[in-house]
Amino acid sequence: MTRPDDPHSAPAQLAPPEPGQLPVVRLRPKAEARAIRHGFPWVYADELVTDRRTQALAPGALAVLEDADRRPLGLVTVNTASRIIARMLDRDPGAVIDKGWFAARIARAQDHRTRLYDAPFYRLIHAEADGLPGVVIDRFGDAAVIQPNAAWAEAHLDLLAEALADVTGVTVILKNGSGRSRGLEGLPEESALLLGALEAPVPVPMNGAVYMADLLGGQKTGLFYDQRPNHAFAASLARGGRVLDVFSHVGGFALACLAGGATSALAIDGSAPALALADAGAKAAGMDAAFATRQGDAFAVLEDLGQEGARFDLVICDPPAFAPAKPALEAGLRAYERIARLAAPLVAPGGYIVLCSCSHAADLTAFRNACARGIGRGGRRGQLIHTGQAGPDHPVLPQLAESGYLKALFFRLDG
Amino acid sequence: MTRPDDPHSAPAQLAPPEPGQLPVVRLRPKAEARAIRHGFPWVYADELVTDRRTQALAPGALAVLEDADRRPLGLVTVNTASRIIARMLDRDPGAVIDKGWFAARIARAQDHRTRLYDAPFYRLIHAEADGLPGVVIDRFGDAAVIQPNAAWAEAHLDLLAEALADVTGVTVILKNGSGRSRGLEGLPEESALLLGALEAPVPVPMNGAVYMADLLGGQKTGLFYDQRPNHAFAASLARGGRVLDVFSHVGGFALACLAGGATSALAIDGSAPALALADAGAKAAGMDAAFATRQGDAFAVLEDLGQEGARFDLVICDPPAFAPAKPALEAGLRAYERIARLAAPLVAPGGYIVLCSCSHAADLTAFRNACARGIGRGGRRGQLIHTGQAGPDHPVLPQLAESGYLKALFFRLDG
Repeated sequence: MTRPDDPHSAPAQLAPPEPGQLPVVRLRPKAEARAIRHGFPWVYADELVTDRRTQALAPGALAVLEDADRRPLGLVTVNTASRIIARMLDRDPGAVIDKGWFAARIARAQDHRTRLYDAPFYRLIHAEADGLPGVVIDRFGDAAVIQPNAAWAEAHLDLLAEALADVTGVTVILKNGSGRSRGLEGLPEESALLLGALEAPVPVPMNGAVYMADLLGGQKTGLFYDQRPNHAFAASLARGGRVLDVFSHVGGFALACLAGGATSALAIDGSAPALALADAGAKAAGMDAAFATRQGDAFAVLEDLGQEGARFDLVICDPPAFAPAKPALEAGLRAYERIARLAAPLVAPGGYIVLCSCSHAADLTAFRNACARGIGRGGRRGQLIHTGQAGPDHPVLPQLAESGYLKALFFRLDG
Repeated sequence: MTRPDDPHSAPAQLAPPEPGQLPVVRLRPKAEARAIRHGFPWVYADELVTDRRTQALAPGALAVLEDADRRPLGLVTVNTASRIIARMLDRDPGAVIDKGWFAARIARAQDHRTRLYDAPFYRLIHAEADGLPGVVIDRFGDAAVIQPNAAWAEAHLDLLAEALADVTGVTVILKNGSGRSRGLEGLPEESALLLGALEAPVPVPMNGAVYMADLLGGQKTGLFYDQRPNHAFAASLARGGRVLDVFSHVGGFALACLAGGATSALAIDGSAPALALADAGAKAAGMDAAFATRQGDAFAVLEDLGQEGARFDLVICDPPAFAPAKPALEAGLRAYERIARLAAPLVAPGGYIVLCSCSHAADLTAFRNACARGIGRGGRRGQLIHTGQAGPDHPVLPQLAESGYLKALFFRLDG
């Protein structure tokens, strides 16, 4: 709605900035600068003055963010195609986004992971909390996978990859451009090899097990590191028991439980390639004699197992996000309840059931209630003994902590 | 307000029940029987018909609970002096509360703990979730401490203690009758030795450290088992670092961190006897050279350390409940914020701070916001890397899970 004679959109201001001089974007008068000053990292589209000059910024352009009184708040990246129209990159409005800037952030993140883990297999960068908004990087030994899920990261991908190789010493870098987040930023699905070469799945040691991660063709970055502490806790319950791992992917819970002393584990998944990787992982760790897989629709297999009268000492259900966003919430919660209802009868008296959700839209209370309802409708009662979350290589900003998406509820069921 | 001619309070019904025949209590017509059928364990005072017959029941009396249509819901214990007027003991209205009944519940709880822990040091009974409403039992090797925090448990204490000795083989049983819960049930503060003899503090092995638990004179049951997983996670961050443990009690976090490889630990507490036990624990584990204590008010000591320019790689603050109940919430949150504000500046760049709350009234979001504000006002920014809770020997009913009282927030602070 800006007119050509609007002083804020004068042609001179549309020219690219001088080197070292960035365009300025400004909060609307009623927008809340206080939250941003206190660490909130995002500006929503309705909070920013979107004059023609701002509209003309290329997706991922850098700019100085000012409050309505023209006081600088920091250096941001702007994407007018996204509901999150600006993301804070640096509280210093004079910061220069060069290789050194990326290297410092990656080194800081690596220090934390090195303290946590004995071997370089972890999520190295978890977006906003690690100071690289919208960027996810997983480390697999000598290889790393980047998910540039925001336009600025796509635009700076070469610098980012160079800094990543310098700081970590990885010799293989892949770009994984799949997933829902990129669509919200107006980015295409697009994957690529940025450095080195990779042919086979990478063996990943975790919780005493070995997982085979297909970094080229797998889901997301090929392996889900977020469940690591929940795999470990499940394994501590599995000693001497029979384990059923539903939605097992590459054997996440099942292989950790075998490493923890389970006598047997059955992995269910819809994907034959994922189960083949699970099998390869079991073989690599010499645990294949106790490991079995069944490919098929999880709901159907759960019903079949119920009719067969199968019983397990530990049942884990870690489905894909049934409620990725608000419109899917009701249907998603019904699906979680149904999983719990079908799985609970398979648990031996005094045994355990682990019910997971990676749905942002389903909060902990709603998910817990759905699970409790399902367990009850499955004819069982239980105690909640543990509520697991993503591991500490998945930090969050306290200001965004509500979005803790991963929930793993551990119940013990009565006889 | 019942009148003498009220048919529900006819004199014949005031007589003690026949052996094996229990009095009946009934939900009001509008009370929600559905929640109880689905596992909610409590009836509040305004949901029960409290005629003269019910009023006459001794605190802790057993009764059969019926819905408004006289369908039995289960066997309950009634305490008209408590806002929780009835607690579900058994879904079977014909259950007999004898030694065998107690033994079965204790055995079921013990099975779970035996699976979790290598040695018999844990919370054995965690009230409602373990099927013994209002009863807490902590196990310390050959000794156990019972907190009978509901009137029925006080009335059945002999049976409970006998069953406890039979199932677990403990040779010492103490009754700890301190704490807020007993007051709500109209029970006096009163502790006693129920079995055996005990003279010295008990050494408790946990997370590679040794804690000295004073079962006779200590707080609650002498040691807080609930923080065990949070001690362990803190210890994993402490390797090679300097640790400050504020509100240390008997050395909870400090000794675990030394066992995890911290180079030094300083424990602060207001209680000289607690610090003496911490010292004894450090000596027992041969870690006293790296361990120091400072007795005093935590707020004052934090201010002093700030003025001294002291820096630590890991700071833990685990204060008593600043907001035990709703009326104390605002003041409690301000106290939590103040703790965070005073402690954050003591954390070295890239170091960690752990902020704990055991306040029922402060929910996770309110507590997290108070901590984030305090860290910000202390001039620092941080990532939230982990949210800890009570360990799996503290199960909860899913219907009561909102009351998960223990929160331990682990932040990594920027430079």
